[in-house]
Amino acid sequence: MLRIVVAPSGFKESLSAEEVAEAIAGGVRRVVPDAAIDTVPLIDGGEGTAESLARTTGGRLVPRVTTGPTGKPVRSHFAIAGGSGPRTAVVEMAATAGLRLVPGGERDPGRTTTYGVGELITAALDAGAHRILVGCGDSGTSDGGAGALQALGARLLDAGGDELPPGGAALARLHRIDPTGLDPRLTETEILVACNPFNVLCGPSGVARVFGPQKGATPEQVELLDQALSRWADVLERDMGVKDVDIRTGPGTGASGGLGAGLAALGARLLPRFDVLLDYVDLDRLLARCDLVFTAEGAIDFQTSRGKIPAEVARRAKRYDKPVLALAGTIGANAHLAYDCGIDAFTSILPAPVALAEAMSRGAEFLSDGAERALRVLLLGTSLTSAARGRLAHLPGRRVALDL
Amino acid sequence: MLRIVVAPSGFKESLSAEEVAEAIAGGVRRVVPDAAIDTVPLIDGGEGTAESLARTTGGRLVPRVTTGPTGKPVRSHFAIAGGSGPRTAVVEMAATAGLRLVPGGERDPGRTTTYGVGELITAALDAGAHRILVGCGDSGTSDGGAGALQALGARLLDAGGDELPPGGAALARLHRIDPTGLDPRLTETEILVACNPFNVLCGPSGVARVFGPQKGATPEQVELLDQALSRWADVLERDMGVKDVDIRTGPGTGASGGLGAGLAALGARLLPRFDVLLDYVDLDRLLARCDLVFTAEGAIDFQTSRGKIPAEVARRAKRYDKPVLALAGTIGANAHLAYDCGIDAFTSILPAPVALAEAMSRGAEFLSDGAERALRVLLLGTSLTSAARGRLAHLPGRRVALDL
Repeated sequence: MLRIVVAPSGFKESLSAEEVAEAIAGGVRRVVPDAAIDTVPLIDGGEGTAESLARTTGGRLVPRVTTGPTGKPVRSHFAIAGGSGPRTAVVEMAATAGLRLVPGGERDPGRTTTYGVGELITAALDAGAHRILVGCGDSGTSDGGAGALQALGARLLDAGGDELPPGGAALARLHRIDPTGLDPRLTETEILVACNPFNVLCGPSGVARVFGPQKGATPEQVELLDQALSRWADVLERDMGVKDVDIRTGPGTGASGGLGAGLAALGARLLPRFDVLLDYVDLDRLLARCDLVFTAEGAIDFQTSRGKIPAEVARRAKRYDKPVLALAGTIGANAHLAYDCGIDAFTSILPAPVALAEAMSRGAEFLSDGAERALRVLLLGTSLTSAARGRLAHLPGRRVALDL
Repeated sequence: MLRIVVAPSGFKESLSAEEVAEAIAGGVRRVVPDAAIDTVPLIDGGEGTAESLARTTGGRLVPRVTTGPTGKPVRSHFAIAGGSGPRTAVVEMAATAGLRLVPGGERDPGRTTTYGVGELITAALDAGAHRILVGCGDSGTSDGGAGALQALGARLLDAGGDELPPGGAALARLHRIDPTGLDPRLTETEILVACNPFNVLCGPSGVARVFGPQKGATPEQVELLDQALSRWADVLERDMGVKDVDIRTGPGTGASGGLGAGLAALGARLLPRFDVLLDYVDLDRLLARCDLVFTAEGAIDFQTSRGKIPAEVARRAKRYDKPVLALAGTIGANAHLAYDCGIDAFTSILPAPVALAEAMSRGAEFLSDGAERALRVLLLGTSLTSAARGRLAHLPGRRVALDL
């Protein structure tokens, strides 16, 4: 009985990680009907994180109306995780400040706010949480977490002593932060921020330059926003007494439009997202005993190796020397970099020339069929003679089971 | 050194078989730089057949202006094959009556003619050919070869004794054929027609019903054309004294819109195309010594197993028990039928949602990249442990090299 781990990401705006995992498992079963398949749908801290962790841990979702990224109220939620240990809440920033909540016409990253994140943290404190896990990803904001701090009681003041309006752009006029009104419970609460450590607040790889354009900023706005976030970093370090973290370029400070920086200034710990999130699933134990690993993401490209789910799955699978195959809807620019992080092979699931909209609406079907085709190709490799396999063993980076 | 045979078809309106083979070989070399790759670009009798066989045999192309499918003159050609043996000419029907030569607005399969095919046969006889190989495929006509017979000297007469106009539809009014004017050299010339034996002239699987719609016929035209070709079969059998062939449903009688039927009535032998064409390449010897076979076609679908190139390659590869992987631009309806004819696995080369036009213009790039990805997936199978391979050996139809 072949043991296969299916550990994919969700496909953005098409399928949840659970749906992706089920679709792949369906395709695998067509080829190896008696395979033992462990599906491990993975989340990255972005959309669906609170719901997924509530389900995984046997916890529950708590609905809450919050301030959305453009200032309008939105239906949001946080999770109370199940299990023993300190009472843990999961605050998913995308659930109140996600890009999906910003209407197409209002995508000005200089004006959107993380105010709702602060409201969710307050709600979690009200619910008695001793530990708050903040999931980053899929953000529609670039305010450095300024809105979250305001919601938690900090005052952001201009030179005239007036409160700044919402949004990252206004931070250019920040004179000082008055932290005296901050919720006192924060000092006795552990806040863990699950973030992509490759995201930093300022500079050439900073929030404004890397994410501004995809959040709707013009080149001029990108420049102004970068300067504003630089000012934000200066004042945060000075007025919040930040010592342990480099707010400008520390790993994860740029997570979710700089929310990482704002929360770090409150004493939160910024952690590589998978180190935090995979505590809640059993991936390593399943990897250790399997024969083959499937992973998947909407796109495999140059970003994959920079902390995306397939790269993390491959990195862990390689600890146990397991073969890793990745499926994707799109093979993008410089996808070959994915080979360097332990993904042995990848392929697209698309069967024919189709428009993006059709690919997304038929995602589950394409995934099942694509998984079936890929597995047949892979298993064809098992029919190569041992002589042929021996003629491959010299190739760099190739691990061939010669069974000699 | 891994030995790989790359034996693809061309991709219609995108890449020649030679270009496809080179693109795949390029992708293979990225994965196994020292592989011994035998490229065997394959033709099916359609477009490019004369040119390909002229090159393969060291022969030459002879240009000739002929009557095109709509009656207008077209620049055409036939080939004089090189080598010893009887002087052989290659007449490619598509070079004078191909679908590509019928302008979009004039796609009425009841009116197009194979007259130019008869002219090319005459030219081949003038050039001293003792054997004429007629390649079928990519036809733009459905006249049952009536035009070819007229060009060779037969008279097709209506009840009033007048010659019929060009095209299959007019055959409904055929009263009798007067063969007395036929070129007398035909009786001492061997004519071999390389055709798909699945194509028959009449009935539910006949030319009109299967190919009429794709050549532009309305449902009414399909019905009338089927009746006209049925009349054509009756009169051919009676007036041409056909005895050895069932003109209505004999294998290959429907080749190239029924050209097979017309030529069979002249005494030509209708032969499975690959039995004829593969005499000119060395495929079997190369298959016998290889480790792995790549084939390819524009689409893998329900038609693949009905005599398409990947199916023929797989059928021959299986005589030597070789693994066969097929690449395609499109995985179409009921593609899984391809598994039954010896194709072990197939995959699409498309990397992302793209329009057909882009897929075609970037065909060579997509093929190289797709071949690379597929080979990496396949070779990943070689890294499965022998224990894992053993757990696959029980699957029906699965051939696993266990090396026990």
